[in-house]
Amino acid sequence: MNIHKPLILVTNDDGITAPGIRALIEVMRTLGEVVVVAPDQGRSGQAHAITVNVPLRPKLLVAEKDYTEYQTNGTPVDCVKLAIKALMPRKPDLLVSGINHGTNSSINIVYSGTMAATIEGCMEAIPSIGFSLGNFAVDADFAPSLPFVKLIAEKVLAGGLPHGVCLNVNIPDVKEGTIRGIKTTRQGTGTWTEEFDHRVDPRGRDYYWITGQYNGNGSAAGTDEWALANHYISITPVTFDLTAHQALDTLTKQFDR
Amino acid sequence: MNIHKPLILVTNDDGITAPGIRALIEVMRTLGEVVVVAPDQGRSGQAHAITVNVPLRPKLLVAEKDYTEYQTNGTPVDCVKLAIKALMPRKPDLLVSGINHGTNSSINIVYSGTMAATIEGCMEAIPSIGFSLGNFAVDADFAPSLPFVKLIAEKVLAGGLPHGVCLNVNIPDVKEGTIRGIKTTRQGTGTWTEEFDHRVDPRGRDYYWITGQYNGNGSAAGTDEWALANHYISITPVTFDLTAHQALDTLTKQFDR
Repeated sequence: MNIHKPLILVTNDDGITAPGIRALIEVMRTLGEVVVVAPDQGRSGQAHAITVNVPLRPKLLVAEKDYTEYQTNGTPVDCVKLAIKALMPRKPDLLVSGINHGTNSSINIVYSGTMAATIEGCMEAIPSIGFSLGNFAVDADFAPSLPFVKLIAEKVLAGGLPHGVCLNVNIPDVKEGTIRGIKTTRQGTGTWTEEFDHRVDPRGRDYYWITGQYNGNGSAAGTDEWALANHYISITPVTFDLTAHQALDTLTKQFDR
Repeated sequence: MNIHKPLILVTNDDGITAPGIRALIEVMRTLGEVVVVAPDQGRSGQAHAITVNVPLRPKLLVAEKDYTEYQTNGTPVDCVKLAIKALMPRKPDLLVSGINHGTNSSINIVYSGTMAATIEGCMEAIPSIGFSLGNFAVDADFAPSLPFVKLIAEKVLAGGLPHGVCLNVNIPDVKEGTIRGIKTTRQGTGTWTEEFDHRVDPRGRDYYWITGQYNGNGSAAGTDEWALANHYISITPVTFDLTAHQALDTLTKQFDR
């Protein structure tokens, strides 16, 4: 018998030692041949940044049958580019990113390295899924989510995804056995109320730490926030076409000449 | 007479000394009170990255009547957040970013610090415009574009923009007097064919430089690339809702349970 195992690329933005990616790797190893290419340290908030001023240095950490692991000094998107264009034997059948420590619902997707890596895979026509859990803690409990992570990955491996679409999967931080199911959702309208913590250093110079409060706006039915608030796993289909198509007619009248 | 001057925030991703932002500043100073908050060095390819591991240090460079200039050690998005939440006397009436050295058409928008700063302004409900010229050179000629930059900024100051929509303005690199007009467009399908330049350092360790070739796919009518190829200024309305709305029904059938 000669069964072709799926080739799965795993990455994240919390860094290669984060418990979230270790949990994701264990699930993916039950589904196929796994190549991990992940940042050597936390890279949260890096969005779709790429590294152009210093060279990228992948470091091979593990090379076993059906399992390879690299860390790099790059961003999550650098990791995906390196994996696909330089490190992997062929284009992967699936890309998974995460499991992020903290949700990437609503506007958080815009800042997220986890989701940027997912979108980069989508741009390369690889079925791609980003997973995030609603708990920022390093000791967050990923166990309740793992059967769903496996189910969603299996479905995507079997059925693919629409052209130009990847998945933003957000998982509620609830006890084992209390996840109520899966809902397909749209991006919510939660926002950050930001402030800067203004300080003065010992040499009298001003500096600022970014800080803020996230307001989920959980009430709108059909959004990612609504699903999480109601203990469902949220799956939002995501595109890299940023055109505001609904505004094309208005702007044509306003600007074209 | 007591005319209220518009308050205009100017930023970019090529750094505060780039000729592109200096040209943009000169145009904006004819339209209102200007505050510049821009990176102290080139920050291309930083996308929507924010800085959380080191503090932000704004440095006041110029403080004149109706004109203030700061540089910061942050990304373009950091600059916008600092400007709005810490440095400016009130919320600006307009945010402009650029003029970028190089277009941000098609998929380039995903990597662009210029457009991330613009989108950040949009998220804060500020009318926001990113400008990019189709020439990467430091000595690119911005003069032919400036009457159009002024016209577009005036129109946005006067008429505003639809809720949740900002503008990605790409300008063809053509001689003075040969820009044919303005077209409202959708994001094109141009892509990068990437490769990595693989080298070995004097200590025998592998390293990689990201490199690549951009293929504009200029033929599809109605896209940003088409407008540029035909010597029109392209205005693409941009959203930060990444939901692939057209895929919601398909995925609901595939995943919901």
